[in-house]
Amino acid sequence: MPLNITQKLIKDHLVAGEMVPGEEIGLKIDQTLTQDATGTLVMLELEAMELDRAKTEASAQYVDHNLIQEDNKNPDDHLFLQSAARRFGLYYSRPGNGVSHPVHMQRLAKPGKTLLGSDSHTCANGCMGMLAMGAGGIDVALAIAGEPFYVKMPQVWGVKLTGKLPDWVSAKDVIFELLRRHDVKGGVGKVVEYFGPGLKNLSAMDRHVIANMGAELGATGTVFPSDKEVKRFLKEQDREDDWIELEADNGAEYDILEEIDLSKLEPLIAKPSSPGNVVPVKDIAGTPIYQSYIGSSANPGFRDFAVAAQTVAGKHIADGISLDINPTSRQMLTDLVKESHIASLLQAGARMHQAGCNGCIGMGQAPATGRNSLRTTPRNFPGRSGTKEDSVYLCSPETAAASALMGKITDPRTLEMDYPKVKDPKHPTTDVNLLDSPIPHGDAKTIELQKGPNIASIPKMDPMPDEFELPILLKMGDNISTDEILAGGARVLPYRSNLPEISKFTFEIIDDTYYKRGKSTVEDGGHAVVGGFNYGQGSSREHAALAPRYLGLRVALVKDFARIHWQNLVNFGVLPLTFVKEEDYDLLKSGDTLILTDMRNKIQQGYEFDIDVKDKNQQIKVRHSLSKRQIEIMLAGGIINWAKDRQAAKG
Amino acid sequence: MPLNITQKLIKDHLVAGEMVPGEEIGLKIDQTLTQDATGTLVMLELEAMELDRAKTEASAQYVDHNLIQEDNKNPDDHLFLQSAARRFGLYYSRPGNGVSHPVHMQRLAKPGKTLLGSDSHTCANGCMGMLAMGAGGIDVALAIAGEPFYVKMPQVWGVKLTGKLPDWVSAKDVIFELLRRHDVKGGVGKVVEYFGPGLKNLSAMDRHVIANMGAELGATGTVFPSDKEVKRFLKEQDREDDWIELEADNGAEYDILEEIDLSKLEPLIAKPSSPGNVVPVKDIAGTPIYQSYIGSSANPGFRDFAVAAQTVAGKHIADGISLDINPTSRQMLTDLVKESHIASLLQAGARMHQAGCNGCIGMGQAPATGRNSLRTTPRNFPGRSGTKEDSVYLCSPETAAASALMGKITDPRTLEMDYPKVKDPKHPTTDVNLLDSPIPHGDAKTIELQKGPNIASIPKMDPMPDEFELPILLKMGDNISTDEILAGGARVLPYRSNLPEISKFTFEIIDDTYYKRGKSTVEDGGHAVVGGFNYGQGSSREHAALAPRYLGLRVALVKDFARIHWQNLVNFGVLPLTFVKEEDYDLLKSGDTLILTDMRNKIQQGYEFDIDVKDKNQQIKVRHSLSKRQIEIMLAGGIINWAKDRQAAKG
Repeated sequence: MPLNITQKLIKDHLVAGEMVPGEEIGLKIDQTLTQDATGTLVMLELEAMELDRAKTEASAQYVDHNLIQEDNKNPDDHLFLQSAARRFGLYYSRPGNGVSHPVHMQRLAKPGKTLLGSDSHTCANGCMGMLAMGAGGIDVALAIAGEPFYVKMPQVWGVKLTGKLPDWVSAKDVIFELLRRHDVKGGVGKVVEYFGPGLKNLSAMDRHVIANMGAELGATGTVFPSDKEVKRFLKEQDREDDWIELEADNGAEYDILEEIDLSKLEPLIAKPSSPGNVVPVKDIAGTPIYQSYIGSSANPGFRDFAVAAQTVAGKHIADGISLDINPTSRQMLTDLVKESHIASLLQAGARMHQAGCNGCIGMGQAPATGRNSLRTTPRNFPGRSGTKEDSVYLCSPETAAASALMGKITDPRTLEMDYPKVKDPKHPTTDVNLLDSPIPHGDAKTIELQKGPNIASIPKMDPMPDEFELPILLKMGDNISTDEILAGGARVLPYRSNLPEISKFTFEIIDDTYYKRGKSTVEDGGHAVVGGFNYGQGSSREHAALAPRYLGLRVALVKDFARIHWQNLVNFGVLPLTFVKEEDYDLLKSGDTLILTDMRNKIQQGYEFDIDVKDKNQQIKVRHSLSKRQIEIMLAGGIINWAKDRQAAKG
Repeated sequence: MPLNITQKLIKDHLVAGEMVPGEEIGLKIDQTLTQDATGTLVMLELEAMELDRAKTEASAQYVDHNLIQEDNKNPDDHLFLQSAARRFGLYYSRPGNGVSHPVHMQRLAKPGKTLLGSDSHTCANGCMGMLAMGAGGIDVALAIAGEPFYVKMPQVWGVKLTGKLPDWVSAKDVIFELLRRHDVKGGVGKVVEYFGPGLKNLSAMDRHVIANMGAELGATGTVFPSDKEVKRFLKEQDREDDWIELEADNGAEYDILEEIDLSKLEPLIAKPSSPGNVVPVKDIAGTPIYQSYIGSSANPGFRDFAVAAQTVAGKHIADGISLDINPTSRQMLTDLVKESHIASLLQAGARMHQAGCNGCIGMGQAPATGRNSLRTTPRNFPGRSGTKEDSVYLCSPETAAASALMGKITDPRTLEMDYPKVKDPKHPTTDVNLLDSPIPHGDAKTIELQKGPNIASIPKMDPMPDEFELPILLKMGDNISTDEILAGGARVLPYRSNLPEISKFTFEIIDDTYYKRGKSTVEDGGHAVVGGFNYGQGSSREHAALAPRYLGLRVALVKDFARIHWQNLVNFGVLPLTFVKEEDYDLLKSGDTLILTDMRNKIQQGYEFDIDVKDKNQQIKVRHSLSKRQIEIMLAGGIINWAKDRQAAKG
């Protein structure tokens, strides 16, 4: 049977399950990436599992999120991560090297391989003909330890690209077009696979832009072929030997199929406060802005900065505008310096920042109260910028540069100039001090982990009890993001390795009484929360499951879950349930108490069961969709207990 | 009588008093600078005085301190400052332009003029043949409003420079040599004036380095001649017309005189945790470091970065070292980019940061727990880096670069390479979007101040009472810095325009119970603190006087005061007293209560009087050194009350 690329990648790595969409499958993982915000916990998990050496072909620990060093906490974490990388045999990318996704693409990505990363935008490396997926940190820890990654077999959503992008329209507008059509849950349970004649005009970095924001569609992954362009890219990186060809078979089929004619696209923009809120730029042109921001893994390429630089070169940005430039990798920044683009940006009035995630995850560059911020970043969830009640628009570098010049949202096609033709650097810089290689196993064994005073062990979790009596502490609507469950940003992220501290921020954006109320339920057996559709969308941070669990969350009952957060809940022993009848959502309110009995039997014996609402004479039919393995994990009280048992059983 | 340069500058600007060292004199102020950390309060003060338009020749508001935008507070302040600059007719330097001192030097500094700045390193512009002095924000507000600046007539300390610096030794080592000889209070009450044949090999920017750290000597100012080198510098900036010659008269004398033979100097380093703790680098070579940091107003020049870039070019910094590069102005960063130095630094593994003060004032780049940090910044007071119990060494860019390569403190003369000869850019970039010019008066009148939610009015202060009964809440030792009285850094600085919030950090480093204990004394008439020598050294931030005053501090009784803090105390109605007999310091302890009676009369009638220690049958003779004008201010309860009265009296 002819296979598409996604099916080939899955078939090559299948170690458990059947390739039937919706069925759980187990996949061998070749590469992993961890970033610092999630990585400290991953390293503590590896320590708890007594791992001796990474079992993957290549695993890399990046430092790109927590670069603001206001006190000892972030630099202590960097040293901890460096020591852990040395101890466990990982690559280590020091602060200043840039964002994990483009750096991984430049230095380690290989066509035909699987990549699992504790960052929701890990899918970006799908641009290299890889099956690249975001996951919770614990899943990545297990993958580093040689365990398969379990995921539901996705549907494959073929997107045929035809035509060529017009002037002033770029890769970002392609993914905006899909978000415009399908919104932030259009990709749930699917891998988006791009093919067709339109690909030949999209560089590997352009494809990175498109692949990256597959996360915003809620997709499991994004896959591009490994073609001549990927070969060219690898050659440019002095890694031509890492190339293999990977294309869909003739006659391969897709579970879903659609087409985008690139020549029909125009500049698009996502309005506050969802990446799915897409309209043509021209519809809101003239809206005043205060900030224009270029960078992040959603526009990391040399051309993304160069086109902005060439647009503003020889001009001045508008009065009062902050044009923030966030370079994405040391390698690209060096080329942008050498090719004079940084000088053009500086002379036009731009503000240069260090290479890294920065404002994309709320670490700096927050906008002023009540002002509009225009960003090339992938997300504009409420408050993610660091400013409460922010107003963030997402767009392409072309639109960001044009708007910075004019001081208002501007369709770049209306500028009185020709579309700049960006030339790639003739000899891209590759000899930069980017990644420290793994050290030999013998030397690694003696490395001690460097734990600063803000790094705390993961508390023990109890196994799942048989009976629950759980008050509902929160009832929430649709599309609750992990940013709302546990925010990122500079106040919160420094405590990511300190569960008692970080849990204080749980659900703070939704209800700042949750922390106290939650904690007070721990002694009495915990509590539940209720939510709508697409619960837990967005960032993969597992703290959004671990922190509520620490505060007594035992059951999350919602209309449906975003995939990564669902998995994180299972891993930390929070039972994720969905309503069998969606309208039952309306029966429940905050303050009701759910009664669950004989649970250890019930979840093993079937997928559906009833729960009682105390004092209300109501029964609600609910469903779990746990695999046999996940039921084991749930009964053990979470995956750390489960993994510990397995390590012990292996001897 | 032949005059030295300092005397000429003072004579040209004298509006009150006699030029007798130690006597209070009033000086006309031609230029002012404010930075954002102190500037928001200055602008609120101008608003409170109902100022219509700045009366100076040039006043500039810089944004260089609070560049980390984690939420709305800092960007709201930037917009407030921009609106205030427009309202009052000031220049405005937006975030990203760089540090006030080098930018002021490039764009506005003029030989023969006076400059008053609400930043203790304002003295840096003494390199341009100016009398440039740091002061509290309120003094700068008064200067902007056209009031003279009152200061004690300084002694003039002539420093004759002879010879030429050896290879690997640079301007920073010259000021370290003075600090080695005279420590952090060697310059108190003095202006340091450099002259002699050694000057001809020091560029204007080299002189900036030396002038800047006059603040660390405790000096009132640093003065260099305006010679051909200053002319060359101004020509390079397209400002040749701003040049006048300014040299000491033949036969001019100095109150103190000493000599430095530049050819005898070697690389020097200040050990933790005082800039006066200077030893030769070779004495501590081999000490392991974790961080090397280049930038700040103490090494802002093109050559400071270029020499480091040329030292590391083609090599890699040592494993695990963070080489942090903090550019100091947009203009110089552009040139460093164009001349390929930034590319060399990046390829060697350096981490590029935005142009600004950054880690120099604890806004980022804090070192890890227990690790040594090597910095070209001017100060290493305890905790200033942001990390408690930090270990910060100060050095030249040459030593910082050599040490980054070797991973340990390294005398750069031991590197196996020739000393790099730095070439200045042939055509320095001046056409950058650096300063927004004042807007016409007519337009300015209608500008509204943009106040974000974190900007609060200055509370009213009561006039000085006649009787005090003041418990001593703290007894401190020598050299207490304003960083210890009220820290800078990212936790604290965002509240600089919000007195109730910022006061919570007062004396926190010394005793974290002070805030509560202090506040509880307000109702009962306040409290006192006791200190040793050089009390209040360091940063000029007036919050270090205003916040304790808000918490009830009415009397500071010490062995002697650092000048700027002493003035700030007077301005905010805290009575600064010194012991007549130093040994009386030993009689007092925390918890004792001071009784002061008939104070309104006593401070007007003499400089010395007795105070009683309650229940101890002790009398302590104390001294104030307030001028007549300062007595008026003290009686009014501080300078805001006093200025308000004056404005009212003028009609």
